[in-house]
Amino acid sequence: MGDAGKKDIVLDYSNMMAQAVGSDHGLLQGELDGLKTRASVAHTRLMELKASGKIGFFTQHEMDTTPIKKYAAKVRESYENFVVLGIGGSALGTIALNQAINHNFIPLLTKRKRNGYPRLFVADNIDPDQFEELLKTLDPKKTLFNVISKSGTTAETMSQFMIVFDMLNRRLKGKWKKKVVVTTDPAKGILREVVNEFKLDSFEVPANVGGRFSVFSAVGLLPLACAGIDIDGLMAGAARMAQRCNEPDIMKNPAYLFSSLMYLSDTTRKKPMLVMMPYSSKMYGIADWFRQLWAESLGKRYDLQKKEVHTGQTPIKALGATDQHSQVQLYVEGPNDKAFCFLHVDKFKTTTEIPHVLEDKAELGYLAGHSLNELIKTEMEGTQYALTVHNRPNMVIHLPELSPYTMGQVIYLFEHATAFAGGLYNVDPFDQPGVEFGKNYAYAMMGRKGYEALRAEIKDKLKNIPSRLL
Amino acid sequence: MGDAGKKDIVLDYSNMMAQAVGSDHGLLQGELDGLKTRASVAHTRLMELKASGKIGFFTQHEMDTTPIKKYAAKVRESYENFVVLGIGGSALGTIALNQAINHNFIPLLTKRKRNGYPRLFVADNIDPDQFEELLKTLDPKKTLFNVISKSGTTAETMSQFMIVFDMLNRRLKGKWKKKVVVTTDPAKGILREVVNEFKLDSFEVPANVGGRFSVFSAVGLLPLACAGIDIDGLMAGAARMAQRCNEPDIMKNPAYLFSSLMYLSDTTRKKPMLVMMPYSSKMYGIADWFRQLWAESLGKRYDLQKKEVHTGQTPIKALGATDQHSQVQLYVEGPNDKAFCFLHVDKFKTTTEIPHVLEDKAELGYLAGHSLNELIKTEMEGTQYALTVHNRPNMVIHLPELSPYTMGQVIYLFEHATAFAGGLYNVDPFDQPGVEFGKNYAYAMMGRKGYEALRAEIKDKLKNIPSRLL
Repeated sequence: MGDAGKKDIVLDYSNMMAQAVGSDHGLLQGELDGLKTRASVAHTRLMELKASGKIGFFTQHEMDTTPIKKYAAKVRESYENFVVLGIGGSALGTIALNQAINHNFIPLLTKRKRNGYPRLFVADNIDPDQFEELLKTLDPKKTLFNVISKSGTTAETMSQFMIVFDMLNRRLKGKWKKKVVVTTDPAKGILREVVNEFKLDSFEVPANVGGRFSVFSAVGLLPLACAGIDIDGLMAGAARMAQRCNEPDIMKNPAYLFSSLMYLSDTTRKKPMLVMMPYSSKMYGIADWFRQLWAESLGKRYDLQKKEVHTGQTPIKALGATDQHSQVQLYVEGPNDKAFCFLHVDKFKTTTEIPHVLEDKAELGYLAGHSLNELIKTEMEGTQYALTVHNRPNMVIHLPELSPYTMGQVIYLFEHATAFAGGLYNVDPFDQPGVEFGKNYAYAMMGRKGYEALRAEIKDKLKNIPSRLL
Repeated sequence: MGDAGKKDIVLDYSNMMAQAVGSDHGLLQGELDGLKTRASVAHTRLMELKASGKIGFFTQHEMDTTPIKKYAAKVRESYENFVVLGIGGSALGTIALNQAINHNFIPLLTKRKRNGYPRLFVADNIDPDQFEELLKTLDPKKTLFNVISKSGTTAETMSQFMIVFDMLNRRLKGKWKKKVVVTTDPAKGILREVVNEFKLDSFEVPANVGGRFSVFSAVGLLPLACAGIDIDGLMAGAARMAQRCNEPDIMKNPAYLFSSLMYLSDTTRKKPMLVMMPYSSKMYGIADWFRQLWAESLGKRYDLQKKEVHTGQTPIKALGATDQHSQVQLYVEGPNDKAFCFLHVDKFKTTTEIPHVLEDKAELGYLAGHSLNELIKTEMEGTQYALTVHNRPNMVIHLPELSPYTMGQVIYLFEHATAFAGGLYNVDPFDQPGVEFGKNYAYAMMGRKGYEALRAEIKDKLKNIPSRLL
């Protein structure tokens, strides 16, 4: 790999093993070896899904990004603001990568200081007050709205779109069409109909790409390119990790190793929680993106043989060093029911020295001459050490630096790991049947046609629960 | 209570009970009644701590806020930016209440549109890149820095302060002293020394107020008042809830009821996780603030008799409706190992209508004529319904509106509930011994004097763990 090879991310799983935390909580090499048959079956299945093109995330990084980059260049000339209307998989990856790679106070910078790129906003909820505040803050003439929904039926996103559609129509009349770009299914669904009817600009979510695996399609790449991020760098990182993940041996494949460690910790060491804890404010969004991926893919009632199993490890996001002053007390002293994965940036862009001031104070003198970089690194090691001494399994993923190339690796690593974990848990990592339940409730109660019987059934059920208020 | 009485928050715990979710997962009234003896002991202890003044949060809302309001009025005249340097309890409450009550895009508004109040920033981490970005974005002449640490030894905050101290000295020479206001112990510690030596403006954290219970001391009130928030409204809400929490009967005291429900769910129904899920973007920070309170207070190795117990329910923050597209699949179909508490705003400030557009599309027509307000409410009820039908215990705290008065109630409710839960779990809710461990590691490895032996011990211990990298 030459120079790029040096920028590979590295998994340090020393503290997941029995030698570090004891065999009640740590794993034995023999247990990892014991997964080989299952792993081989899971690997074969994934490689089939990849080769057949049934599941798209495996090869998204091979897509031609030229149309997206061209479009982004035009957006840069014309707009001050780029607003994503999207939720879940249509929002989390974009938020995460923008936070990880871009300046974190961009909205406060002048256009020149942000190199002419528009300010990116992601409206991923329907809080009426917050959504109103956003719309009133931005000048609609200078704002491009990117409506993202693969199916076109996502109630939150479509409601936002209807509100924006109406607002733009009233304020800009016929010109509104230039203020909207749609990302949706290539052929099907209501949003594609809207695109065709009004001749709107649009991009495609390939049919073989599910929401939580879609950040490297136009879903994430369009907003990220518009925000000035080097999307080809992301793709190159993903390609590098995809290459590392072709390896069938779980001890040599980073995605398989990650999944195997967490799967065994959950199912054989009673660790139903997985804490994802970057020691980097900029990577907090990655923990949130991962949270959807792991929870929605593995949290399943039925296994592949339709047996009721109720599987799924609960992913928890935490932030170092901040949460040392919030969660670490529980992590170190509470129940030993969690596995931990830290994300560590080996080299930040900045080195922030702690100056030689106030050195006459003994309590501060020891900090002077060090740097924030050393401090945050030492604090992570301190948390690791505290966990390890208290027999709590933990691992670290080291990023040589925080860049599109390393972030591309991280994203692909976790996507492939999640797909593989589906094989270990023996569930379908690509569906989400449980989400339908609440959706149907909303349809019924909002009066959608065809849901009258469900509405009656719900009302009947709720009638039987005694109300208890205080 | 007259009019204010109508603004009481309401706990709806119907779905925590066996009638709603079955007795395998839901509670029986007899079990709540069975807590009465323990509850009475815990109540007596809390009332003693309150009466003796040993624990300060019980009566913080009685403090005289005049000096803070006067100071805030001066800040409003002189500054564009107010930056908190603080972490954990010195940051979380301020972030939460500012987000809940203020406009969420204030930094983008003109000074006139934000009524002349400065923009509030909270620097609660030591990520070198992000901290550098913040400092470079703000004009130091127009910025007031509020350094908050009760002990004055918090490494993260003190490092930030040393960096800011040096930067201000270099750029503003003698004038730097006007750009810093300190909140710390009234008499002890290095920060109080610094205040006295340089004659800095300062406020006090009373000795009887611990970090995670300190938002209604100057720790939270000063930044919040500077950001234009009606702190007397917060105090009035806290006073109202304190009054409700004088009641010894757990069935009539909202704090005791909340704790009892969660304690029984954790210890008798195998719910080691408590998901706090506001259906309001603006209340997401409250879930994060609660997370410290619950985790750090109850996550303990030893009980009051020094027996090793490893207690503590893991608090998890989630956001409705957003996380319906991320976590709800796991919550509904995964292991039944969580209790849920929703936070619901009954009346938002804005009513955002979904307009009658695109009505010819069947998939959208059902939304037209409704509002985002109805949609988010219906979605919460849908999630509740899905959880209840799948036998997962859940409750709702209803806020009549999102205001200082209701937020004051919420804050006090959870503080009092947490203190009471300490009684139920039989642990000290006011200490955090586990945090020392990682701190000492940092001291040793950063070369603080007196920690040489620990440094040697750590190095020796780490030597014995075989390194495993991929």
